[in-house]
Amino acid sequence: MTNKRKIINDPVYGFLTIDDDLLYDLISHPYLLRESQIKQLGFTYMVYPGAMHSRFSHMLGALNLMNRAIDVLRSKGVTISDEESLGVKVAILLHDIGHGPFSHTSEHMLADIDHETFTLLFMQRLNEQFNGRLSTAISIFDDTYPRHFLHQLVSSQLDMDRLDYLARDSFFTGVSEGIVGTERIINMLNVTDDMLVVDEKGVYSIEKFIISRRLMYWQVYMHKTVIVADNIFYNIMRRARELYKPTDETSLLHFLTHRHSEADFRTDPSLLDLFATIDDNDVITTVKKWIHHDDKILRNLSSMLINRHLSAIKVGNQPVTSDLVDSLRERLCQLFDIDRTETEYYIGTGILRNNAYNFNDQEIRVRLKDGSILDISEASDQLDHRFLEKQVTKYYVYYPKELRQS
Amino acid sequence: MTNKRKIINDPVYGFLTIDDDLLYDLISHPYLLRESQIKQLGFTYMVYPGAMHSRFSHMLGALNLMNRAIDVLRSKGVTISDEESLGVKVAILLHDIGHGPFSHTSEHMLADIDHETFTLLFMQRLNEQFNGRLSTAISIFDDTYPRHFLHQLVSSQLDMDRLDYLARDSFFTGVSEGIVGTERIINMLNVTDDMLVVDEKGVYSIEKFIISRRLMYWQVYMHKTVIVADNIFYNIMRRARELYKPTDETSLLHFLTHRHSEADFRTDPSLLDLFATIDDNDVITTVKKWIHHDDKILRNLSSMLINRHLSAIKVGNQPVTSDLVDSLRERLCQLFDIDRTETEYYIGTGILRNNAYNFNDQEIRVRLKDGSILDISEASDQLDHRFLEKQVTKYYVYYPKELRQS
Amino acid sequence: MTNKRKIINDPVYGFLTIDDDLLYDLISHPYLLRESQIKQLGFTYMVYPGAMHSRFSHMLGALNLMNRAIDVLRSKGVTISDEESLGVKVAILLHDIGHGPFSHTSEHMLADIDHETFTLLFMQRLNEQFNGRLSTAISIFDDTYPRHFLHQLVSSQLDMDRLDYLARDSFFTGVSEGIVGTERIINMLNVTDDMLVVDEKGVYSIEKFIISRRLMYWQVYMHKTVIVADNIFYNIMRRARELYKPTDETSLLHFLTHRHSEADFRTDPSLLDLFATIDDNDVITTVKKWIHHDDKILRNLSSMLINRHLSAIKVGNQPVTSDLVDSLRERLCQLFDIDRTETEYYIGTGILRNNAYNFNDQEIRVRLKDGSILDISEASDQLDHRFLEKQVTKYYVYYPKELRQS
Amino acid sequence: MTNKRKIINDPVYGFLTIDDDLLYDLISHPYLLRESQIKQLGFTYMVYPGAMHSRFSHMLGALNLMNRAIDVLRSKGVTISDEESLGVKVAILLHDIGHGPFSHTSEHMLADIDHETFTLLFMQRLNEQFNGRLSTAISIFDDTYPRHFLHQLVSSQLDMDRLDYLARDSFFTGVSEGIVGTERIINMLNVTDDMLVVDEKGVYSIEKFIISRRLMYWQVYMHKTVIVADNIFYNIMRRARELYKPTDETSLLHFLTHRHSEADFRTDPSLLDLFATIDDNDVITTVKKWIHHDDKILRNLSSMLINRHLSAIKVGNQPVTSDLVDSLRERLCQLFDIDRTETEYYIGTGILRNNAYNFNDQEIRVRLKDGSILDISEASDQLDHRFLEKQVTKYYVYYPKELRQS
Repeated sequence: MTNKRKIINDPVYGFLTIDDDLLYDLISHPYLLRESQIKQLGFTYMVYPGAMHSRFSHMLGALNLMNRAIDVLRSKGVTISDEESLGVKVAILLHDIGHGPFSHTSEHMLADIDHETFTLLFMQRLNEQFNGRLSTAISIFDDTYPRHFLHQLVSSQLDMDRLDYLARDSFFTGVSEGIVGTERIINMLNVTDDMLVVDEKGVYSIEKFIISRRLMYWQVYMHKTVIVADNIFYNIMRRARELYKPTDETSLLHFLTHRHSEADFRTDPSLLDLFATIDDNDVITTVKKWIHHDDKILRNLSSMLINRHLSAIKVGNQPVTSDLVDSLRERLCQLFDIDRTETEYYIGTGILRNNAYNFNDQEIRVRLKDGSILDISEASDQLDHRFLEKQVTKYYVYYPKELRQS
Repeated sequence: MTNKRKIINDPVYGFLTIDDDLLYDLISHPYLLRESQIKQLGFTYMVYPGAMHSRFSHMLGALNLMNRAIDVLRSKGVTISDEESLGVKVAILLHDIGHGPFSHTSEHMLADIDHETFTLLFMQRLNEQFNGRLSTAISIFDDTYPRHFLHQLVSSQLDMDRLDYLARDSFFTGVSEGIVGTERIINMLNVTDDMLVVDEKGVYSIEKFIISRRLMYWQVYMHKTVIVADNIFYNIMRRARELYKPTDETSLLHFLTHRHSEADFRTDPSLLDLFATIDDNDVITTVKKWIHHDDKILRNLSSMLINRHLSAIKVGNQPVTSDLVDSLRERLCQLFDIDRTETEYYIGTGILRNNAYNFNDQEIRVRLKDGSILDISEASDQLDHRFLEKQVTKYYVYYPKELRQS
Repeated sequence: MTNKRKIINDPVYGFLTIDDDLLYDLISHPYLLRESQIKQLGFTYMVYPGAMHSRFSHMLGALNLMNRAIDVLRSKGVTISDEESLGVKVAILLHDIGHGPFSHTSEHMLADIDHETFTLLFMQRLNEQFNGRLSTAISIFDDTYPRHFLHQLVSSQLDMDRLDYLARDSFFTGVSEGIVGTERIINMLNVTDDMLVVDEKGVYSIEKFIISRRLMYWQVYMHKTVIVADNIFYNIMRRARELYKPTDETSLLHFLTHRHSEADFRTDPSLLDLFATIDDNDVITTVKKWIHHDDKILRNLSSMLINRHLSAIKVGNQPVTSDLVDSLRERLCQLFDIDRTETEYYIGTGILRNNAYNFNDQEIRVRLKDGSILDISEASDQLDHRFLEKQVTKYYVYYPKELRQS
Repeated sequence: MTNKRKIINDPVYGFLTIDDDLLYDLISHPYLLRESQIKQLGFTYMVYPGAMHSRFSHMLGALNLMNRAIDVLRSKGVTISDEESLGVKVAILLHDIGHGPFSHTSEHMLADIDHETFTLLFMQRLNEQFNGRLSTAISIFDDTYPRHFLHQLVSSQLDMDRLDYLARDSFFTGVSEGIVGTERIINMLNVTDDMLVVDEKGVYSIEKFIISRRLMYWQVYMHKTVIVADNIFYNIMRRARELYKPTDETSLLHFLTHRHSEADFRTDPSLLDLFATIDDNDVITTVKKWIHHDDKILRNLSSMLINRHLSAIKVGNQPVTSDLVDSLRERLCQLFDIDRTETEYYIGTGILRNNAYNFNDQEIRVRLKDGSILDISEASDQLDHRFLEKQVTKYYVYYPKELRQS
């Protein structure tokens, strides 16, 4: 037969099954293959050396969880047509396709577009190439498909995206605190009145999930060394943009020195293809080259990133005072014999924010045995509003290590 | 050499190393071998079929963690003499030796002594047999040894007992919610002013530990099916004691029908040896025999336990009213055509209680980078007093399944 | 609905799903619950303390693998009716139900029947109780069902029984050498001409499976300490049978002192129910009691087993000479001051035998990409006939430890 | 204190401990950081998406195993001085530092030097920078240190390099067939007459190790899709070298278009620093750029690699005949309308070879309980000479996919 059923080894789940020709053709498309060259966690490998896993593997992993979720829901009597099943699988497979290299930081540097818009641009382009076979997937993704719970499987507090990335990032960083009972949560999913809900027996697992997510947030996603690397990389891009006139020397420089809007991408189809050629390799190669750049600032910053001569960082519960920043700048001027304006490439501040459960976001709903629906904050004995609403805000300032020792 | 270095396979940690002759001789002693016939989690296997692991494997596991803890502390400059090292290892190895079969339930049924007292009785007896080589271990265990942190390694909020049983019970039940970063926590241990403390970097792991413990509590240790089995078993022992005159027919019956005090055990050394012959096998064999007992109540209860015709149970947040209990009894009298007094063997109530972190108990202290010491409730951004102090209390009533359907 | 869909935690696979009322009712039946009191690996826990897992958990595990195998085969276009699916699931669930306590050793001691016959007796009895709903299962089990590959899923070189017990025994002993890519093998199964075959891509996994099985054989199943314990237990039963007249004192003694044939079990239906009341608990309780028996031999043997004062054993590649046995007996007579006849309870010999791949047994067939079928010995580059046919035979003699030191 | 004790999360072992300032300074050195940008398994991620792990993580992993090996040997009474301990740790940490990007393929393309020589060049340079503190490490590495077993820990059939990469590659590819009982093997190591040996109890683990290595070889290291990617990449480099005159445009092009000998590197110290700036990123960035190269061949090959339009490959047990190659070339000429000389960039042949145990290489020696030493082929019942000596040789031919379909 022409069936392209494929089994792919995955260290997190053992096996991933690709059971449809469209899915098979999509994962062979250059737009997706490109994600195999983009790390899921950017510079996190500087702290957790195992965290080299690609966005590509996350896309496959989320697809795998979607396969299971559909099986579970169907076994509980939820009707999902084959068209819907394929649509929701394609939607989860492509949900992150808009991410560029180190996208956390580069997102608004390379274009005036966020990664969600890029995702839609890619999906629509692929839909043209595949003769409209992605239409259902797109409507599920942008929540215009009539059955809302399908969208929730792709994007909500309990979507397959989050379930996979928590499991995967925990696995590759080796941070066992982030281990989540993914399989159990999926087994507890159900649908009521077109809403994705969790069966009552799953409450404990949801509690664990919320807490693990929070711990991963602080221990991995907001790790202070990674924050520092991100800021240095941001300053590198900022400085490069100041130095370079619009140029097409490389794809990366093109996007760094032009400032394309969504309209540009829609007007000129070749732009998206050009954007699709950029990945982590271009970033690192370029920054390595800049270690020998004429501009001292770009040179210094590039060397700091590549040779991991990372800045010091202080994280605290109070906003960083301008007095502190001023005095750091002052000392840096003296120490390095530089202008005050130059110090802003080396010293900066920022805010980290996280709450366990965002009430503005979609809720996690629990279906009790008697059929009634409660929010997790009501259904849980362990987690109440006070805990869930608590927003942790931290403030940081980073500055050259040399200031620490003087 | 005569060195009895021994490596034992353990599914939780891979390997356990016994590196001292005394330890080797102890784990070959009948008092300890007996614990290989006593399940760590009693009747929990009725819900989690994998939970057949023995108290013996827990004792070895806790010893293994102690080995690591000593290595970590020594590498951080904490002085621990070889005598102290062996003492604290023996103490953790023997810390649970006082547990009898299904001891959660049988504890006060088989003697007027709790399991901690039994542990001391066994330790002292072994100390005689081993010519005083357990003296340091005993003083660490009963906290009379001058260096308090050694006792804390054996018994405190972060002792090797808890760290092992959470990891082990989570492993064998398959409840991934209970997975704790045991190795990371041990790596973060330190000693300040003779107190066991956690280095600041370990705060996240402690948060995860506290929460996992809480989830394990409700999902495993207080699982309602296990509560029912425990209650039925309790009623079986109660009824048997009413029916039997003091008898020596079997060791189990001896202790069930006599009521020995600690003084008895001290006066008559053979009593402890007799007690040491009882394990899970005697309990199950005896209850199986009672399925054919002349007494109808004992017969019924025994059959309910063995054939898992377990009672129904309702768990709620409000105390069970006497009205509800009365009406259940009333209906049972009619349904089974029995006396009202008989119903109390089939219907009963109880309370389940747990708070995340017991402030009356020892605290978990965190050492910040600046050397100051904080309680975890102050050092943690995620867990504050409100969360940690919150005590969850639940009330249950159990009754024959037949009442549910009528 | 009345659907009894049930999810059971299992440490090996995470979750087991029971998706049919008949399966649910079977796993609640006393005949099966009894297997939760029978250890899968008998006395192996004396060497591997984690190996306390029950035959019950193995039965559930094999059922779980069968669920997956059916899904895989159906996804490859193999037609399996719902009736057949349920039949083959029931067959694998019940395939080991004939095992009694420590059945490896006790098999021919408790009745003149092997455990396969007991399995059929139990199946037929259950079929009566469930009004013939097990008929398909029984015909698949005894290979009278027309579609042979269904039987092969239950009993062949690659049946779900073996795949589960290798994975499970490796998991609970902690012997990582036995880890098999169970999931991968099942993914590679297929059916050709009513034969279970392995797709060509699965050859490497089969090689690993054959070798792992061989290593598990020597490292676990034939571990010499376990062999010793088995022999002591055998001698205990032998001695007890000599001492006791036919008695009904306990179920265990009944079967030990009578000698029932298959005909007896068919004539008297109550016999099977009586047999079903015996489990590991009865064995250990009884042997513990015999530590105080009047008969010195029974007393000694029982103490050796319970207190693990196990015999010494020598395993070699040459048959044990009668000269060696004679001289051991001679020395034992002198050392213990006993009769020569008595020595045969303490000294004995035996043979251990294993080949990697039994050619008399069913073959493992591989389907190449071109559709042709080869035996694994031809399809594999690594394993050839010479390797696979090689039968390892070892000879052992055991004798009291005291002889070793004199 | 100034102690730079560091704990690094590692998904394979949980934790890695860096317990010496020299080790800490080395892993912060640009020469080593560079290895975090070089994948351990090159293009293997095209088949196993999880296999993105870096050589850096392997170097840390091997160091971790060395830590354990030293502990085990010392606990068995083998004297290892602190100087030797640090030396052998540094040696294993740096053992792979000579690897460049995709070094399997690029090794002789970028310089006339193999990676072992590069390793020595780097070690000697570092030794200068660290004032001779690496001298012991270097003498252990090049086997001039008097105690030979230390070298064997770094380079032999059972060195920490192999033990780590088998475990690590198995982990990240998700190929469970490669799982090896690493911890058990290390526990079984010992030293006799200055030779690294395995205690008799470790024979089973060694058998499993040899077989797992063999399976990993065919399932991962020699996976045919990876072989194809390697060949395409080789042809890309070959073609580029033909097209480019010596150029310094980028570091990669410098080395691709010059042909430096070991003498060059010794004469001009800056060459090694230049070489140290190249990593995987440069390779991918460059090949991506060549997709738009003027030269059609380079353009085609680059596109095939990046867009994974990989060649077809046939692997067989017989040498590929020149007739077959000729006919493939003929058909390609017609299909693509190209010259015959051009076909050699698209069509090629090669040999894959592996035997389980290389007798020319160092042996694995087993120490029996009686103290005698045997080779594993004699000590093992499972593996005999016939099996171990068996060399598997396969022959392959690759050619454009288009030829397959015509």
